[in-house]
Amino acid sequence: MKKRMQSLEKAFSPRSVAFIGASNNLSKWGGIVFQNILMGGFEGKLYPVNPKEQSVQGLRSYPSVADIPDEIDLAVLVIPSGAIPDAVSACAAKGIQAAIVITAGFAELGDKGRALQDEMVRRARAGNMVLIGPNGQGIAVPGAKFFPWLPTLRLNPGVIGIASQSGGISTEMAEQLAEFGFGCSKVVSAGNCADLSWPDYLEYFRNDPHTKVILLYMEGASDGRKFFEEARKTSLEKPVIILKGGRTEEGTRAASSHTGSMAGSDRMFDATCKQAGIIRVKDIKEAAILAAAFVKTPLPRGRRVCVLTGGGGHGVLTADLASAKGLELAPLSGATVERLRGHLPPWWGPNNPVDMVAGMGYSGPKAIIPILMESGEFDGVIYNGIGWIYSMMDPVNGPLGRNADHERAVKAQIDENLELSEILIDYSYRWGLPLLVHAKALHLAIRKNYEAILRFLDKGIMLYPTPEDAVNAFAALADRYAFLQKEGVA
Amino acid sequence: MKKRMQSLEKAFSPRSVAFIGASNNLSKWGGIVFQNILMGGFEGKLYPVNPKEQSVQGLRSYPSVADIPDEIDLAVLVIPSGAIPDAVSACAAKGIQAAIVITAGFAELGDKGRALQDEMVRRARAGNMVLIGPNGQGIAVPGAKFFPWLPTLRLNPGVIGIASQSGGISTEMAEQLAEFGFGCSKVVSAGNCADLSWPDYLEYFRNDPHTKVILLYMEGASDGRKFFEEARKTSLEKPVIILKGGRTEEGTRAASSHTGSMAGSDRMFDATCKQAGIIRVKDIKEAAILAAAFVKTPLPRGRRVCVLTGGGGHGVLTADLASAKGLELAPLSGATVERLRGHLPPWWGPNNPVDMVAGMGYSGPKAIIPILMESGEFDGVIYNGIGWIYSMMDPVNGPLGRNADHERAVKAQIDENLELSEILIDYSYRWGLPLLVHAKALHLAIRKNYEAILRFLDKGIMLYPTPEDAVNAFAALADRYAFLQKEGVA
Repeated sequence: MKKRMQSLEKAFSPRSVAFIGASNNLSKWGGIVFQNILMGGFEGKLYPVNPKEQSVQGLRSYPSVADIPDEIDLAVLVIPSGAIPDAVSACAAKGIQAAIVITAGFAELGDKGRALQDEMVRRARAGNMVLIGPNGQGIAVPGAKFFPWLPTLRLNPGVIGIASQSGGISTEMAEQLAEFGFGCSKVVSAGNCADLSWPDYLEYFRNDPHTKVILLYMEGASDGRKFFEEARKTSLEKPVIILKGGRTEEGTRAASSHTGSMAGSDRMFDATCKQAGIIRVKDIKEAAILAAAFVKTPLPRGRRVCVLTGGGGHGVLTADLASAKGLELAPLSGATVERLRGHLPPWWGPNNPVDMVAGMGYSGPKAIIPILMESGEFDGVIYNGIGWIYSMMDPVNGPLGRNADHERAVKAQIDENLELSEILIDYSYRWGLPLLVHAKALHLAIRKNYEAILRFLDKGIMLYPTPEDAVNAFAALADRYAFLQKEGVA
Repeated sequence: MKKRMQSLEKAFSPRSVAFIGASNNLSKWGGIVFQNILMGGFEGKLYPVNPKEQSVQGLRSYPSVADIPDEIDLAVLVIPSGAIPDAVSACAAKGIQAAIVITAGFAELGDKGRALQDEMVRRARAGNMVLIGPNGQGIAVPGAKFFPWLPTLRLNPGVIGIASQSGGISTEMAEQLAEFGFGCSKVVSAGNCADLSWPDYLEYFRNDPHTKVILLYMEGASDGRKFFEEARKTSLEKPVIILKGGRTEEGTRAASSHTGSMAGSDRMFDATCKQAGIIRVKDIKEAAILAAAFVKTPLPRGRRVCVLTGGGGHGVLTADLASAKGLELAPLSGATVERLRGHLPPWWGPNNPVDMVAGMGYSGPKAIIPILMESGEFDGVIYNGIGWIYSMMDPVNGPLGRNADHERAVKAQIDENLELSEILIDYSYRWGLPLLVHAKALHLAIRKNYEAILRFLDKGIMLYPTPEDAVNAFAALADRYAFLQKEGVA
């Protein structure tokens, strides 16, 4: 197994790549994927293989992989499926240890395709090669600027590793993460998982120092027991988040013609996930939000949450959502109420949620959050920071008339938020308690490089677009702590 | 009651406004709200009332409302709560029929505040005035560029009417809608609902020709029976979507100190909503998405959905989500399969979801969707249009190296999407069947004025950021059809 992991590592950090089926035609897969490697900024050596061309997209083309006068770490294969087994054999003969098969037309088409797929795998294993795919969209390694992917993908480096049985879904997960300000260590479109499969990807990510959080989209595992063994082992070290396609009969039918996967009972899958400490999600956005949450936020050591809110309605909704997720809105002690009183207007009602009741001229969250954290009464804080980016700063629609007074008010707001972000980051780390901030208009703020938000992101701390997302993340973080504690590793 | 509605209409379309408590200090509420009216572009007459100032923000100030030498349609009150009852009497004496009380410090503070609130209402009713608030953030009427709101809000005109017991939540709903490309007819921050309350706002929106969809955030209704009577009556004419704060014990406690609301049993509320045809949602984003869905999309006359997908994984997930929402992925008939075959690659497997299996050079959705709609086998189509805006067009992260070939490919993609949008809009209307499109990177596309997307929005057709949102909207549209049918009005 160690050998297979070394081979897989070559796929992610190759010094030299042979591209079999490289094309000058940009409406063909072999043209698009090749262009993506070229334009992505890959710094290793790239050798197009195409017997019909002298050069491909400006690089000298070789008639066969055997003709390349260099050692090759990775082969990318984008040729018709029928020609794949022989090409795999040729790669093995060249001493290549890893290949990505992007070509479709294997087990997802039924028995005949499955036989072809089996033959391909037989040839690869006979030659000591590992295969990613087939029927996937490729891999992406942002840190190495290596994007052998179809159609096009550019991502920032980060610490989230993604493996997916759908290229479209991994792309969307990665782009969703990018919108939140998070990058990826590696993205693998695993396709039919003919050779390398879930246990391999889990093992790889578990041992990969660049990966801190693992995100999977899967439609089925051919060896359920092996998968769960690896998943459990991995969960003890790194969070594993799974989006599973084929939860229902209808979804399972669709999965079978998509990747040839056979899903088992969903209830059993769910129960086993819980046992293995796997975090299961229901949609792409939830997957991205939880993955980002796990990057750096400290785990709450229990379910007692204090909700601090700049708007009463947000406090009410957050309390509803938290309670429905089994979080406990623990009461404020008399001592904490006394400490808070000085920082809140006289009409403040001493409850959890702590509603800052639109008091102006009070010190607000930068005084209140430290008090809540120091109290020892909560395992973490959710802050409905609706004031973070006032609409006045950047209204979504249309130009806002401005004058000097207005500009001054905006500037003051920005400075205050910046100071607040420093204090909060500092406190969250000092106390080892999670602070989950709901920041309205978050996407806009990230795109506008709003500095108070970027300070959080620089530290790897997720900010949440809605109160529901923050509550959901808090519950998942608390669940993980409980799992690690039960297993004796927290 | 008719009289009260006429008075409320004056609040939304005043020719003249007295602002009691207008201030030159932009860190005071009376300064901020006054500035918002001024800078929002209100074209009526505006009279600041402040005995201590000669002028406020450039306008001549009056010592009292009685001194204004004009008829006044609406008073906005931003003065300390203790002074409100006398100010209301003064407004009534001036013949003003409507007032917005933004000031807080009433029933949400307990018995003493409640007595003050009752006194204020008594004075208003004695003077034939209607009151919005107190303890709200104001109102917004985008069509009239009238924004008496705290802190700042600018919205595009549209057909969604919002009334909310939380200013923060109505702002966030409206901004979420704006991000999706939708505007509002009127936004009311209803505050404590001391005088005008839910039945009034429902009656108003039901009869308002500018409002087609009604969205409420409520924490409680003082007269439950009356509320549900009006809600039911309104539901028969226009969709009513409710986000309710205080679903749980914790939320109810928070609501009581926020707006002094007493929530009843949530289960009973839920059952009554169903009877009254009310669409209940759990969070702000869901509220905005469903409101936008109801603006123009035709209602499906049943729950048979066909999922068309550009990516297999998206098809699997959408099938799972649809099935979990009680939608039926009806099978394709033999005749429909035959018609589709010509437009799909040979390896296509004839199932619902219809997976376009990454075939290139095929006619794709613009040929397929009309066939699905004409078949009579479905009540609507969900299209996972992941190809709408390829990442290649505008990757989220970092600059994408480009060359002429690349630019050509992007241009071709854009032209094709534009043509597709025309065909799809045309077909959706011709067949009266809903077509729900999941468009990846939707926010980005709207902000970039991507024309194919804007064509849909120009027609009032919502596009969905995730498959889950599209499925959820389809189910809500189908539920509404079933309600109207049961009531004999569909």
